[in-house]
Amino acid sequence: MEDSRPRFLDDVTVELVKHSASDSDVLWAARVSTAGEQSIEEINKDPERSKGLINFLMRDRHGTPFEHNSMTFLVKAPIFVFREFQRHRVGWSYNEESGRYRELQPDFYIPGPERKLVQEGRPGKYVFVDGTEKQHKIAVEVMESAYRSSYEAYREMLEAGIAREVARAVLPVGLFSSMYATCNARSLMHFLSLRTKSEQAKVPSFPQREIEMVAERMEAAWAGLMPLTHAAFVANGRVAP
Amino acid sequence: MEDSRPRFLDDVTVELVKHSASDSDVLWAARVSTAGEQSIEEINKDPERSKGLINFLMRDRHGTPFEHNSMTFLVKAPIFVFREFQRHRVGWSYNEESGRYRELQPDFYIPGPERKLVQEGRPGKYVFVDGTEKQHKIAVEVMESAYRSSYEAYREMLEAGIAREVARAVLPVGLFSSMYATCNARSLMHFLSLRTKSEQAKVPSFPQREIEMVAERMEAAWAGLMPLTHAAFVANGRVAP
Amino acid sequence: MEDSRPRFLDDVTVELVKHSASDSDVLWAARVSTAGEQSIEEINKDPERSKGLINFLMRDRHGTPFEHNSMTFLVKAPIFVFREFQRHRVGWSYNEESGRYRELQPDFYIPGPERKLVQEGRPGKYVFVDGTEKQHKIAVEVMESAYRSSYEAYREMLEAGIAREVARAVLPVGLFSSMYATCNARSLMHFLSLRTKSEQAKVPSFPQREIEMVAERMEAAWAGLMPLTHAAFVANGRVAP
Amino acid sequence: MEDSRPRFLDDVTVELVKHSASDSDVLWAARVSTAGEQSIEEINKDPERSKGLINFLMRDRHGTPFEHNSMTFLVKAPIFVFREFQRHRVGWSYNEESGRYRELQPDFYIPGPERKLVQEGRPGKYVFVDGTEKQHKIAVEVMESAYRSSYEAYREMLEAGIAREVARAVLPVGLFSSMYATCNARSLMHFLSLRTKSEQAKVPSFPQREIEMVAERMEAAWAGLMPLTHAAFVANGRVAP
Repeated sequence: MEDSRPRFLDDVTVELVKHSASDSDVLWAARVSTAGEQSIEEINKDPERSKGLINFLMRDRHGTPFEHNSMTFLVKAPIFVFREFQRHRVGWSYNEESGRYRELQPDFYIPGPERKLVQEGRPGKYVFVDGTEKQHKIAVEVMESAYRSSYEAYREMLEAGIAREVARAVLPVGLFSSMYATCNARSLMHFLSLRTKSEQAKVPSFPQREIEMVAERMEAAWAGLMPLTHAAFVANGRVAP
Repeated sequence: MEDSRPRFLDDVTVELVKHSASDSDVLWAARVSTAGEQSIEEINKDPERSKGLINFLMRDRHGTPFEHNSMTFLVKAPIFVFREFQRHRVGWSYNEESGRYRELQPDFYIPGPERKLVQEGRPGKYVFVDGTEKQHKIAVEVMESAYRSSYEAYREMLEAGIAREVARAVLPVGLFSSMYATCNARSLMHFLSLRTKSEQAKVPSFPQREIEMVAERMEAAWAGLMPLTHAAFVANGRVAP
Repeated sequence: MEDSRPRFLDDVTVELVKHSASDSDVLWAARVSTAGEQSIEEINKDPERSKGLINFLMRDRHGTPFEHNSMTFLVKAPIFVFREFQRHRVGWSYNEESGRYRELQPDFYIPGPERKLVQEGRPGKYVFVDGTEKQHKIAVEVMESAYRSSYEAYREMLEAGIAREVARAVLPVGLFSSMYATCNARSLMHFLSLRTKSEQAKVPSFPQREIEMVAERMEAAWAGLMPLTHAAFVANGRVAP
Repeated sequence: MEDSRPRFLDDVTVELVKHSASDSDVLWAARVSTAGEQSIEEINKDPERSKGLINFLMRDRHGTPFEHNSMTFLVKAPIFVFREFQRHRVGWSYNEESGRYRELQPDFYIPGPERKLVQEGRPGKYVFVDGTEKQHKIAVEVMESAYRSSYEAYREMLEAGIAREVARAVLPVGLFSSMYATCNARSLMHFLSLRTKSEQAKVPSFPQREIEMVAERMEAAWAGLMPLTHAAFVANGRVAP
């Protein structure tokens, strides 16, 4: 029997559960075009040339060599994050926990102390600034209270025999969900270019902080698997090829 | 100034806002393969042959001739419907109202009297049956009350100066949203095959009733634009080519 | 009865056969996010603001509002062009003349007098320069002769009762084919960014001249339909959003 | 220095160069929906249930759990095969040898003794039957002769200093090329359903024999990696979920 007391979490989690992804995957894919097939042994002989080739592909936006690899992440984050995440259609596969098949557990998102709560400026030019301590207190208290009431309403309907898929209508988008997300380096770079904010970025982006928290963890895991590709992405202004 | 008293709605709306889609679009696309280009005048000369060709393409799953057309719908439905809808990635384009840029209005979904509320059976074999009057009453009352509280919490945070994108975390997935969705006949058929339930379907599907309500309205609009294609879809077991 | 004497052509053709595409399609799609639905009448009231919004979307790479429109082109070009063209997977639909169903007609590509024939430099940095008159003469004579022989071989096999799909193996990639290609403004911009060469381009590209000839004609047709979107594409360095 | 004497080959080759694909990948992806995350150890405890779940997913066309895996193949086949292959857009990544960057080598396809050369019936109902010995002899002789002439024309232009991308126009679609193709089980099943012919297939298909030869080898490699998934695909009429 699962515990149904609400939990309030101020962080997301990202786990790299599976991967087949390395810089050499980019290299052999690129070299079939220009030099016939090469073995990984041949490719590994000349690391400087490898670095140069990856950089050239990134700069001139030869995108397909970055697609012959695969990474699967298990992501736990609030529904409002998944709503944005799943708008990424190309080169992404998703399987998410179902509110039709399962009774959903009461894990809810609240902003942590670092989360800037106040938005200034106009659409397209928003800036977030720290709220006061009082604002943070209000946010947490109002959210926790609203989450509790929503979850009680959900449970009340379930106990009255109403179907999960109907009862869930009252659950908030701050509820945590879980999904497996599979991508390749190219689709991941596209995601990162839109869902992180960076001074190195040629094109500005304004991601919501919570999806950026997911993106940052994915980027760290990916950088470990494909360091040359990651470095070239950063060096070329974080624009996906 | 917009009214912020909650509204409770038991129906979705679908409006065909724009289209460039007719049966003859399928025909000329198919005939380039086999007979060179044909004018629409030539095609229209022989309606029986047109019907036969569309039926043949559908039956033998020649999918691409069904892609050279376009329909844009404005859909208003609860977030939990859009969560399922936007999982359709191929041949679909979406633009949805943003909870980051706009203050969201308090329109909420409640089940209508026809909505079967009780689920029986096991995963993969669920059947929905009518609930009792009492169950329907509980659902509506609990939902309305939970929705009101959530929206008050949202407003309270906004009034305290907290950003919309943070405050919205308490809003429920039963909140209505709006989106433009553009597709072609092939991507629409794929959607319909999974999101409607029909005795004519070769492959069973178990859509949630609320997305099926959207799908039925889209199907009706499409059937008016491409009657031969729609008839062939139905006659071939509602399997997308 | 079709004439089977070879024809040698130094140009491609592109015809816009169908479209549902205008700048206002971008505007209403974008404004659902920020301002709720707006009628086209409202949108048309303020052309300067429209221009500014389209420019903002392009610059900050908000891509989806550029997808709710559709253009279908009939393209006649050599097979080697279609080989590159059909590598564009996202937001493109194709139907091409079939060498399995039809006897292919002897239209072949030869370089026109403007086509630079000589390549200098190394991979990734090629430059094309004019050949000598003699080189052009060689190219045309060798090609025409090779094309004739290939087509005779094709015909000889057909006359011996060998299936079209087998006999076509000898036909060259310089043979003309026809296809319908349907796209939206976003997928077209991506195509143009890679398949045209321009001093306005932020990212260099090195298209083969023959596919660029197709791309230029498509761009001209599109610019007529969506002038504000086209202008914003050019002003923003010909990078697809 | 590479040998430029033509070689005539009657077979294709397919090598599985890399993979991250097993039946358990389907299982954990599916179970996140219904039962929360499960470890592979838990999943492996109950093989009969695993088989049942995969079969259920296939039958009811739950496609996404079949996407969290990756296979990369190195395929060598004639250009006319790649022309069909690369029409598969969704869930496929390609990198092919470039005729712009490389001098192409003279490997050409000729039909083997098993290849049925004669087509009977009408479009949509073609049947292939054995040709006579004489027909086979004509095909091979005419093809070899045409291929030799084409390749000589190509070489002649190269020697005159004409660019590779121009000279290749005379090369036939029977020329061998090489590509890396990466897919997942779902996109592979879709490919197999259209590019193989089988008595077990619910929906008939009429692939050209040469692409079917590629598809058969891919299917054999995949069946070794994901035996339960492959068995469920066959048992459910070779329809992709």
